[in-house]
Amino acid sequence: MKLAVVGLGLIGGSIAIDLKKAKFATEIIGVDSNSEHIEQALRLGFIDQTGTLETACKEADMVLIAIPVDKILSVLPIVLDHIPSHATVTDMGSTKRVISEAVKNHPRRKNYVPAHPMAGTENSGPIAALPDLFRGKIAILCDQDESGPQHVALIEKMLQTLGMKIAYMTADEQDHSTAFISHLPHAAAFALANAVLAKENREIIFDLASGGFNSTVRLAKSSPEMWGPIFQQNKEYIVESLEVYIRHLKEFKKSIENDENQMNELMANANRIRSILDGSNGSSLIQNEETFIKLYTK
Amino acid sequence: MKLAVVGLGLIGGSIAIDLKKAKFATEIIGVDSNSEHIEQALRLGFIDQTGTLETACKEADMVLIAIPVDKILSVLPIVLDHIPSHATVTDMGSTKRVISEAVKNHPRRKNYVPAHPMAGTENSGPIAALPDLFRGKIAILCDQDESGPQHVALIEKMLQTLGMKIAYMTADEQDHSTAFISHLPHAAAFALANAVLAKENREIIFDLASGGFNSTVRLAKSSPEMWGPIFQQNKEYIVESLEVYIRHLKEFKKSIENDENQMNELMANANRIRSILDGSNGSSLIQNEETFIKLYTK
Repeated sequence: MKLAVVGLGLIGGSIAIDLKKAKFATEIIGVDSNSEHIEQALRLGFIDQTGTLETACKEADMVLIAIPVDKILSVLPIVLDHIPSHATVTDMGSTKRVISEAVKNHPRRKNYVPAHPMAGTENSGPIAALPDLFRGKIAILCDQDESGPQHVALIEKMLQTLGMKIAYMTADEQDHSTAFISHLPHAAAFALANAVLAKENREIIFDLASGGFNSTVRLAKSSPEMWGPIFQQNKEYIVESLEVYIRHLKEFKKSIENDENQMNELMANANRIRSILDGSNGSSLIQNEETFIKLYTK
Repeated sequence: MKLAVVGLGLIGGSIAIDLKKAKFATEIIGVDSNSEHIEQALRLGFIDQTGTLETACKEADMVLIAIPVDKILSVLPIVLDHIPSHATVTDMGSTKRVISEAVKNHPRRKNYVPAHPMAGTENSGPIAALPDLFRGKIAILCDQDESGPQHVALIEKMLQTLGMKIAYMTADEQDHSTAFISHLPHAAAFALANAVLAKENREIIFDLASGGFNSTVRLAKSSPEMWGPIFQQNKEYIVESLEVYIRHLKEFKKSIENDENQMNELMANANRIRSILDGSNGSSLIQNEETFIKLYTK
């Protein structure tokens, strides 16, 4: 199968690596507005050839769009204009309502399957691409009744080839849940970095930053080119999520000041996240004392 | 050297593992108010014997206190009351002002060296203990002029044995910087977990949680028994840090709503944290394309 990948950064590159290795794609045409990225992707070997958006779309059995969500808005209709009638199109954008809306009345709407893989790192560009980035992670497929069943089936097969589990939602549900579970943590990390940078100097931060600070602030390294358009396209739900978050921060601050019992209750409630994330009872620690003894002591 | 470790959890246990392995301590006496923890630590082999607080202190050349900071307040004076005159005492608490203040006038104040290792995980108890937990991390030594030089030297040697780098501060400076760089990220994570738990159900969180959410919210799994007393003892600076953080969150929210340019500037400013944390230019990514090609493609 001939695959066109539009956008050769972290997401597009990582997908190309896996789909090539699994022979899901026999030939990959890479498209990117940045010619350095194209050269890197060719050198790194995860695309076979390059072309303009139009020529790549005309030749492809499937087109995968992995560019910032504001760019998807203008590129997706062009892609649908140029694909052969059998071809399948998907995008990997983190927002879905505005993008789906933009092609709602396109004659090739059925060829398009809106998707969102919940995976990534804070790095970007072809050199940030990683094999197996998506294995075990969730992909959201949206509004599947709006897409042709063959097209849904092909994207499901692609996501399974990447090792992903699939969740089905409306574009609106995806944007709301993603606001809280992905976009809010990014906004929180950007603000945390700014708060700390405002109060502590570089040397102190560098010296004192430990695992806890690093993991909480990691997402503040994320690219504004990618995240600005996400915050704009999902503005309504992200603002809602920030308001809920600020309310919880104020409540926690107040409890620290005036009500130790409530403070402890709020922490105990937050602790519930462990059992949810770790599954069952949260005991992902080494349980076998024998193993522990062998590994670590004496 | 005979070492008494008071508190056999993540921190005390991890230190015991390393100091035993490095033969810094030839004999370790473990003290804990939880008898199950003592049994576990004996079975895991990172302590050699156990005793009451008083008997352990009487025999020890050095006493290391690794318990929640509210407990340190009552235990530290008892330890100083019972040690031989040559012995050195340190504590691993995350706050330092209130603790130092509590023994300011103790006749053995010079034997005590207030310390804070900036390392840990969100887990607790002896089974959470890990070798090399401290390697490459920073420890803060406070108000060193208040301690005898032999005692400072011994604690420096211990921290170096653990592989730690040492930063010197007053207890007040440590509490302020730690509020922003360690305590605030914990408070932010507790509130983030509560905000998400308030708005999304377990299944959605479990399904959609990706690396970004997990790392940002990880600290919300931390123990209220440990963190409650830290928030209380460092209340003034933690409340300040939360106020600064809430201000930055509001500013970021407003920029998303009304001012895209400012939003982009705020993200670009937050991105500076990358160069600080990664050192130099933040290029910790694989730089060698040849290596990349060999590892990942074809």
